[in-house]
Amino acid sequence: MGKKMGVAIVGSTGYGGVELMRLLEAHPYAEVTSVISSSSAGTSITDGYPHLAGIREELLDGVDAQAIKSKADVVFLATPAGVASKLAPEYLAAGLKVIDLSGDFRLKSPALYEQWYKKPAADEVYLEKAVFGLAEIYGENVKGADFISNPGCYPTATLLGLVPAIKAGFIDPASIIIDAKSGVSGAGRGASLGTHYSELNENLKAYKINQHQHVPEIEMVLSDVAGTPIVTTFTTHLVPMTRGIMSTMYATLKDNRSVGDFIELYKEFYEGRRFVRIRPEGQWPATKEVWGSNYCDIGFAVDTRTNRVTIVSVIDNLVKGAAGQAIQNLNLLMGWDETSGLQFVPAYP
Amino acid sequence: MGKKMGVAIVGSTGYGGVELMRLLEAHPYAEVTSVISSSSAGTSITDGYPHLAGIREELLDGVDAQAIKSKADVVFLATPAGVASKLAPEYLAAGLKVIDLSGDFRLKSPALYEQWYKKPAADEVYLEKAVFGLAEIYGENVKGADFISNPGCYPTATLLGLVPAIKAGFIDPASIIIDAKSGVSGAGRGASLGTHYSELNENLKAYKINQHQHVPEIEMVLSDVAGTPIVTTFTTHLVPMTRGIMSTMYATLKDNRSVGDFIELYKEFYEGRRFVRIRPEGQWPATKEVWGSNYCDIGFAVDTRTNRVTIVSVIDNLVKGAAGQAIQNLNLLMGWDETSGLQFVPAYP
Amino acid sequence: MGKKMGVAIVGSTGYGGVELMRLLEAHPYAEVTSVISSSSAGTSITDGYPHLAGIREELLDGVDAQAIKSKADVVFLATPAGVASKLAPEYLAAGLKVIDLSGDFRLKSPALYEQWYKKPAADEVYLEKAVFGLAEIYGENVKGADFISNPGCYPTATLLGLVPAIKAGFIDPASIIIDAKSGVSGAGRGASLGTHYSELNENLKAYKINQHQHVPEIEMVLSDVAGTPIVTTFTTHLVPMTRGIMSTMYATLKDNRSVGDFIELYKEFYEGRRFVRIRPEGQWPATKEVWGSNYCDIGFAVDTRTNRVTIVSVIDNLVKGAAGQAIQNLNLLMGWDETSGLQFVPAYP
Amino acid sequence: MGKKMGVAIVGSTGYGGVELMRLLEAHPYAEVTSVISSSSAGTSITDGYPHLAGIREELLDGVDAQAIKSKADVVFLATPAGVASKLAPEYLAAGLKVIDLSGDFRLKSPALYEQWYKKPAADEVYLEKAVFGLAEIYGENVKGADFISNPGCYPTATLLGLVPAIKAGFIDPASIIIDAKSGVSGAGRGASLGTHYSELNENLKAYKINQHQHVPEIEMVLSDVAGTPIVTTFTTHLVPMTRGIMSTMYATLKDNRSVGDFIELYKEFYEGRRFVRIRPEGQWPATKEVWGSNYCDIGFAVDTRTNRVTIVSVIDNLVKGAAGQAIQNLNLLMGWDETSGLQFVPAYP
Repeated sequence: MGKKMGVAIVGSTGYGGVELMRLLEAHPYAEVTSVISSSSAGTSITDGYPHLAGIREELLDGVDAQAIKSKADVVFLATPAGVASKLAPEYLAAGLKVIDLSGDFRLKSPALYEQWYKKPAADEVYLEKAVFGLAEIYGENVKGADFISNPGCYPTATLLGLVPAIKAGFIDPASIIIDAKSGVSGAGRGASLGTHYSELNENLKAYKINQHQHVPEIEMVLSDVAGTPIVTTFTTHLVPMTRGIMSTMYATLKDNRSVGDFIELYKEFYEGRRFVRIRPEGQWPATKEVWGSNYCDIGFAVDTRTNRVTIVSVIDNLVKGAAGQAIQNLNLLMGWDETSGLQFVPAYP
Repeated sequence: MGKKMGVAIVGSTGYGGVELMRLLEAHPYAEVTSVISSSSAGTSITDGYPHLAGIREELLDGVDAQAIKSKADVVFLATPAGVASKLAPEYLAAGLKVIDLSGDFRLKSPALYEQWYKKPAADEVYLEKAVFGLAEIYGENVKGADFISNPGCYPTATLLGLVPAIKAGFIDPASIIIDAKSGVSGAGRGASLGTHYSELNENLKAYKINQHQHVPEIEMVLSDVAGTPIVTTFTTHLVPMTRGIMSTMYATLKDNRSVGDFIELYKEFYEGRRFVRIRPEGQWPATKEVWGSNYCDIGFAVDTRTNRVTIVSVIDNLVKGAAGQAIQNLNLLMGWDETSGLQFVPAYP
Repeated sequence: MGKKMGVAIVGSTGYGGVELMRLLEAHPYAEVTSVISSSSAGTSITDGYPHLAGIREELLDGVDAQAIKSKADVVFLATPAGVASKLAPEYLAAGLKVIDLSGDFRLKSPALYEQWYKKPAADEVYLEKAVFGLAEIYGENVKGADFISNPGCYPTATLLGLVPAIKAGFIDPASIIIDAKSGVSGAGRGASLGTHYSELNENLKAYKINQHQHVPEIEMVLSDVAGTPIVTTFTTHLVPMTRGIMSTMYATLKDNRSVGDFIELYKEFYEGRRFVRIRPEGQWPATKEVWGSNYCDIGFAVDTRTNRVTIVSVIDNLVKGAAGQAIQNLNLLMGWDETSGLQFVPAYP
Repeated sequence: MGKKMGVAIVGSTGYGGVELMRLLEAHPYAEVTSVISSSSAGTSITDGYPHLAGIREELLDGVDAQAIKSKADVVFLATPAGVASKLAPEYLAAGLKVIDLSGDFRLKSPALYEQWYKKPAADEVYLEKAVFGLAEIYGENVKGADFISNPGCYPTATLLGLVPAIKAGFIDPASIIIDAKSGVSGAGRGASLGTHYSELNENLKAYKINQHQHVPEIEMVLSDVAGTPIVTTFTTHLVPMTRGIMSTMYATLKDNRSVGDFIELYKEFYEGRRFVRIRPEGQWPATKEVWGSNYCDIGFAVDTRTNRVTIVSVIDNLVKGAAGQAIQNLNLLMGWDETSGLQFVPAYP
């Protein structure tokens, strides 16, 4: 095996950053050569993450573009919203390929970004330049690109569950309702009442109903594949678990369709894409069945009484919903097999 | 304070039974005078439930009607489906008032029961005789009745959230989608892979999509209050927590309605009914906020883009969804204040 | 029933404060007439605790002694360490009886307080004045007192498990090792990495080994009852649950003693004290068996091979370990039955 | 890379079996060529474990020795106690190398086995033949052996934490007290009240105090390394989490020793053994810091007041406590680097 390609991680002290480190440890062609944190530069990554003892013990680097370029060819941005929009242009200018895990470059319209994120948008030139890396849908665009905007966790689970049905005209695009549920790690490592153990344990809560910043991202893709504007009803819930997202999606059938029709459609649509698994009739996926892995599992129910389909889609929000899909995009971008370094079996139980 | 009325609990070794004991310990007018279990008669209730040591230490009685009648005036049936249908007629014949917590007498149609429960239905005479005790909706029927069928947990959360909107014609009855989530205690104390800790912890799963036996119960009431048949899309999910149910409900608005309209409607509808609490605009209930109590909390979101309302309703499945509502029905039936012995503050956190 | 006595709660926005509200709602002789918070005065308690909607909706009062005195006869201090030491003297001076739930008045030596709490100690006059309210051990001192220092959560579970054996000379006082475990609510409502859901869920951690501020409190009482200085080895662990403390305690037997001997000793020692329950041989308590209640359950194992006894003691840290015992002390202080308003059955499951 | 060696797994439908599959998927020199279950032969492994869809879809094989031999060179026995004792002799006779994960061959004395396991012991010839595979202690014996008895989960965490101190004479062997805590997956996949979610969630319980079948295994090794019989006090607790074991161990110091002395001793003792990580002074390991990995992390506290050391040792019970160490033994046995295929980074959070 030859020398591996160097990659850098900015935002190494967040959950997305450490998950990138966990996964990349197994990568055959890439290795992490710089872990970066603007706030903690100069300290050891193991100070905050003792689980990395003996695995990654180096000091955290700063965010300087030239320093990164001297160590790496690709940089992952695992920073909060509002940070990548400032860093990415510098890194691109320095000749680095950039894969951004934040929401800063997902929406093409600055106005839309500002409306939903309540922050200044990135420069429009870069919004246009960034390729939206929903790997199973836009993978062709990712190949050879040098700037990828990695999708959000809710959009990934939701879109992989809806796009084939929309594209095939199986469902009425005006009827889509998305009831999404997430584990707590999606909220990041920041301490707040909203991430306090005693507040969340043995509790289930709805939040940001129709107000989540992932709404426009979902609608952007659905509208794109439908060729017509689509709006959705979208509810998010916080579930007392660390990892996992489930989107339960409802839509009215345009014609008489059976579960078997959906299974056939989706199997064909995702043929050759190992990370999407379609469940047999009568079986719906559970989040633990993808825990720690890059899989997205999808199951269906059709109710002839109401003429609606129910689609259940699950991912691990930190893997397929963040770090895993980012590595999948790295693979696509570099021309490697998309599963390289991502063949983790879900950890069950 | 005079002598309390004696009540008996059949099915004392299940979660519904022990919850009745917990709650009734605080009742001002009733006291448990017989705890009954066909399978464990003669043993102490504390063998299986050491938390009752020093509180209830008597031996479990058998199911004989005359023996019960000698100790109690009212009997709660907290037995699995298929048992109450056999016991209730005897107890009624012996002059006992009966409050059944199982599903055996909820549906008026034997055929419907057999279709959804996959068991022989109860005698039609008794199906008709049983008053469906959804206390805030059918409380008037409960007063003075001697045979109550206590509603299911999912129907209670769901119906309290939908009935006012249906009755007022705020929503299109053909558009109702119910995404329901429950803690594990709803599955009872029976040991199975489906209640195994390692299978459920850090896991979220969908189950029985459109097949749950609570579907016809929900549709029975919705159709009744609408005056026209209603069918719904109903998904159930298992959440890694012990207690709590949340129903997230979606419907299309018939006219332009704001969250404020819904709040006003529901506050008026539930005026004087202490156990339903309506949340202010922008706030949605979480299951922990009713944990251990008889409350049902309801919140709303309206999306003008899609013209849909989202209604979130939560209960503690073992209290308002079972034992608590059963005691509320006892109160109504006896002419006591409906909150008697039920003024538990939610245990938070 | 006559008019209830008014009690005030300072620190109403913490977990100890809201637990006092939950429990006092059921008290036959006392009622909460003022909920107080220095930081949130003027806002509604339901802003931070929606579970209290319809139960307690009044605005939070300020900490002024005269204002409190105009509404209440007794004040509970449920404030962080370092606050009660400043407030208690004023309140006592205003003629209020004071029950302090913090650690500020537990240790009689200012030096010891400063060593373990790393804060300035309270005035020595008040340290001496405060009666240490470990109800089952020092209840006689509490009766008629007007200033109570309520014990810590770990000390309560630990001391109730050790005192009878020490007093009876069953165990070697030099051999005591305490392995204690707590749910997360003991850390309070403050948001930090140490209370972050994703950090604690599916995790078990040891912390503050031999450094916990409850060590001198435990040793103070053990030394007192032994009549000779005792030092202990004390480890604390954080368990992924919200409520519950278990102390597993190890000691060398001084003579040949069986489990039966311990059971007999403890039953006699705690005779008439309803909140301590001794388990039969072969059965050890679990924290859920006291959840939400004021019980302390204790079980034993004797190993003849090593000549050691293992004592397991459990409480709900927010009830017997805080608010419940504080109310028990209120009852003792006022001459009411010590169980008044505290007859909650553990919520199981 | 050449052809991989075939390995078979008997007991594939248990948690140990599926964990072997998860880990071996990443092995560079070995691959699973037969998954075996006596009870489910002929069905697909994905029937019970949908998380393996697309990864392992073959049918389960039967337990026949010759059939296994035709597919594999090494067989892992991940069967319940009492089964391996019957299967291992056949497999050895067929020329297979055997790594047994059950307790059947750990104790060398049949009488001891029968006393603690309450089952008939294996044939003494095989008890003697089996090499006890505590890899960091007895690794030299494993090399080239063809029959390995893999240690238990509690013994692994406990012994790795105690052996160096015993060997070096740092602690009094008569003083050892072990307070052990485990997640629920250690109880296997069998459904019972003891593994029921609602009974274990938000609960901490002590069980089998001084009676756990791992006691003689721990004492066997401690006695061996001390050169003198050692008895211990051993308590097990069930913690509301799926994976993870922590042993908190207490012992009296023989001489004046600091935490620094222990750290130095252990670092030297485990030099070159990557899976044992020693924590710096003032830091103690948490179970999540080894979750999903083969690490055992160890930390220390010394209390000069009581002259005792507290040693905290954590593992993932399904990895280092079962499947991971079994693969580590495979590596040693085959002469491969012991970390081959085991370089999983702990999944955090």
